[in-house]
Amino acid sequence: MIAEIVSVGTELLMGQVVNTDAQFIAQRLAPLGFQVFYHTTVGDNVKRLTAVVHQAVERSDVVVFTGGLGPTDDDLTKETVAAAFGMTVEPVPEEVEKLTKYFAARGYPMTPNNYKQASFPKGSIIVPNDFGTAPGCILSAGGKTAILLPGPPRELFPMFQNHVMPYLERMAGSKLFSRELHIFGMGESTATYQLRDIIENQTNPTVAPYVKTGEVTLRVTALCQSDEEGEALVRPMIGEIVARLGDVVYSTVGESLPETCARMLMDDRLTLAVAESCTGGLIASEFVAIPGCSNFLLEGCVAYSNEAKIRRLGVKRETLDAFGAVSEQCAREMAEGMLASSGSSLALATTGFAGPDGGTAENPVGTVYIALAGATGTEVKRLSLHGERARIRELAALNAFDLLRRALSK
Amino acid sequence: MIAEIVSVGTELLMGQVVNTDAQFIAQRLAPLGFQVFYHTTVGDNVKRLTAVVHQAVERSDVVVFTGGLGPTDDDLTKETVAAAFGMTVEPVPEEVEKLTKYFAARGYPMTPNNYKQASFPKGSIIVPNDFGTAPGCILSAGGKTAILLPGPPRELFPMFQNHVMPYLERMAGSKLFSRELHIFGMGESTATYQLRDIIENQTNPTVAPYVKTGEVTLRVTALCQSDEEGEALVRPMIGEIVARLGDVVYSTVGESLPETCARMLMDDRLTLAVAESCTGGLIASEFVAIPGCSNFLLEGCVAYSNEAKIRRLGVKRETLDAFGAVSEQCAREMAEGMLASSGSSLALATTGFAGPDGGTAENPVGTVYIALAGATGTEVKRLSLHGERARIRELAALNAFDLLRRALSK
Repeated sequence: MIAEIVSVGTELLMGQVVNTDAQFIAQRLAPLGFQVFYHTTVGDNVKRLTAVVHQAVERSDVVVFTGGLGPTDDDLTKETVAAAFGMTVEPVPEEVEKLTKYFAARGYPMTPNNYKQASFPKGSIIVPNDFGTAPGCILSAGGKTAILLPGPPRELFPMFQNHVMPYLERMAGSKLFSRELHIFGMGESTATYQLRDIIENQTNPTVAPYVKTGEVTLRVTALCQSDEEGEALVRPMIGEIVARLGDVVYSTVGESLPETCARMLMDDRLTLAVAESCTGGLIASEFVAIPGCSNFLLEGCVAYSNEAKIRRLGVKRETLDAFGAVSEQCAREMAEGMLASSGSSLALATTGFAGPDGGTAENPVGTVYIALAGATGTEVKRLSLHGERARIRELAALNAFDLLRRALSK
Repeated sequence: MIAEIVSVGTELLMGQVVNTDAQFIAQRLAPLGFQVFYHTTVGDNVKRLTAVVHQAVERSDVVVFTGGLGPTDDDLTKETVAAAFGMTVEPVPEEVEKLTKYFAARGYPMTPNNYKQASFPKGSIIVPNDFGTAPGCILSAGGKTAILLPGPPRELFPMFQNHVMPYLERMAGSKLFSRELHIFGMGESTATYQLRDIIENQTNPTVAPYVKTGEVTLRVTALCQSDEEGEALVRPMIGEIVARLGDVVYSTVGESLPETCARMLMDDRLTLAVAESCTGGLIASEFVAIPGCSNFLLEGCVAYSNEAKIRRLGVKRETLDAFGAVSEQCAREMAEGMLASSGSSLALATTGFAGPDGGTAENPVGTVYIALAGATGTEVKRLSLHGERARIRELAALNAFDLLRRALSK
């Protein structure tokens, strides 16, 4: 079946927001077997919207519309699509009641234009909106289906996932079961090259690579009738990928690197302290983002200045004088000083030149030392990173998480 | 003039990447006076791409294409658009030479398909690509203009800004001059309500609001002939907005809150230390993101556990027993302890319940205390924040920056 995404909203045409809705929907349509041939964005204008609706309904079997379901006169999607399907838009008593209650509970007046949000094309299926006042709806006629959803991603994402996916899965006669493999330490081209026969000949499950800073994600997706069948289809493929790529695969259940480290630390009942120079709070912050981090994270120190390295972490002044703050020796002393003074099981440290200025002939911008100290000793790693200051800091933090992850895997 | 953006790429249709190119281009077309009526995304398919090209060229005066300029057989944009304009695609000797040199310098073999990237529709203007091997081009015929650019944002953004904008400015007979006002502590609806007459009657300059977590940006854009004229057009509007909104406007030159604080600290030759519990490194990390932060940031402490608060910051155990870690008293002692032990001019502290668990009847999840200690005393503020853990932490950090900014403004 051919599918199409039509986004309605002048704010998209003007570039005031980026169209994450279209991406979210496309990611879910394709693996279900829908062929998505077009995304179109059009403004809140009856004439142009009508033309786009007619073209979309003519060339596609399923059209997903986003935006234009609100209470203002500008919100035209329901009326325009209903007209194309030869339907009228009418108030739905239960929805009017829900909306009236919603406003009463908040003490807001319900203005007449709000009734628009409780009106729907006659015969359509109403899609509940758990995070806003504009429900969506699904219309079918003459073998064509239109799915109308509100624009704000925080409303659309859960609506699509919880209420539209089951509908689409029934249409497709199957459902999706996905698992994400996360990879650190191998580039996308190397990873996909090692899996090229799998990717070229894929049928079910499919394997799709996605890239973000320093990491590669492989989404393994099975078309199936049940989660059990999905799990059974996906498991051998995950096993094969891990067998080929090895321990660069750090999660087969979609966890991030800090989440993986956190889980391993808690499983082993170990505690951690962090001493950061160039990453400057990035590592601590990613751990504190995890609920329950107090179970393993004792403390963090951002020792950006030499004085702080000496006073807080016990780095020797002679070390700084002889080797500089960006050195194996300094990284080692930072980690060991943090380990001793915090009483943690493990201590992680970073020091480096994140740029744009600084660096030496020996240790140019992008040089970062990461260290992990524990009861069995201290491991130090030198990194040569490239990019802007933000990217170097982010890659340094990822490498530090990976150093910890590998130590905990032993 | 009517403009349209056509994005070519199966990776967009499948949702593997989000279409930031379309947003970037749209943001720049609209203020120049181009009316952007459609964005269309289509895959690497000759038939469908040809249909989209014809429709776009028919209904719009200027069509900006992104993607499909690479060396593979899938990359069809140049050929398809040239055919619609009745042009042939031919190798351009200077471009062949540049590309040959590029490959030679890197020691890569130049494969035959790479010549595609040095071939252009006859008579087109070549748009240099400073960050990749696929230049863009501009075609004009019969009053219609097509602008072809590569898809990767890191190539497209600078190409568009540096090489396409001057062309569009010549077409529009004027150029753009923009300044961004950043606002913290006032919502978008309140801000735009206070400026409603300006926004409703705007001609030149225009005022456009953008929202991100906890902040509002107003972009003031003038259509002008020179930067001097732009500055002269924009300045009184900025003055009027600041007069109406007051000190919630923290920057009229597009700086972020941490950047504003950093500049003020350096201007006053003051130093800062940070003690973070719930924000856990977020504040330190945002400061360390700024090059030259060693000029003002002495150190940071992530004291998530009570033990760390006592040992590192000198918080009294009795204080924690009597009032808990999330209390005005604890925030005050954290800031004052950090001030005393670091020797900084100012110390900022945060402690709160970021959720999802924790909190008390008195201080539910979302309660955060922020404190600023200095020579003249300590100021503590209680915040009641809403949202997920990440949002509460981010808002807490923004409020801490704003507390510092307001103290430095006095």
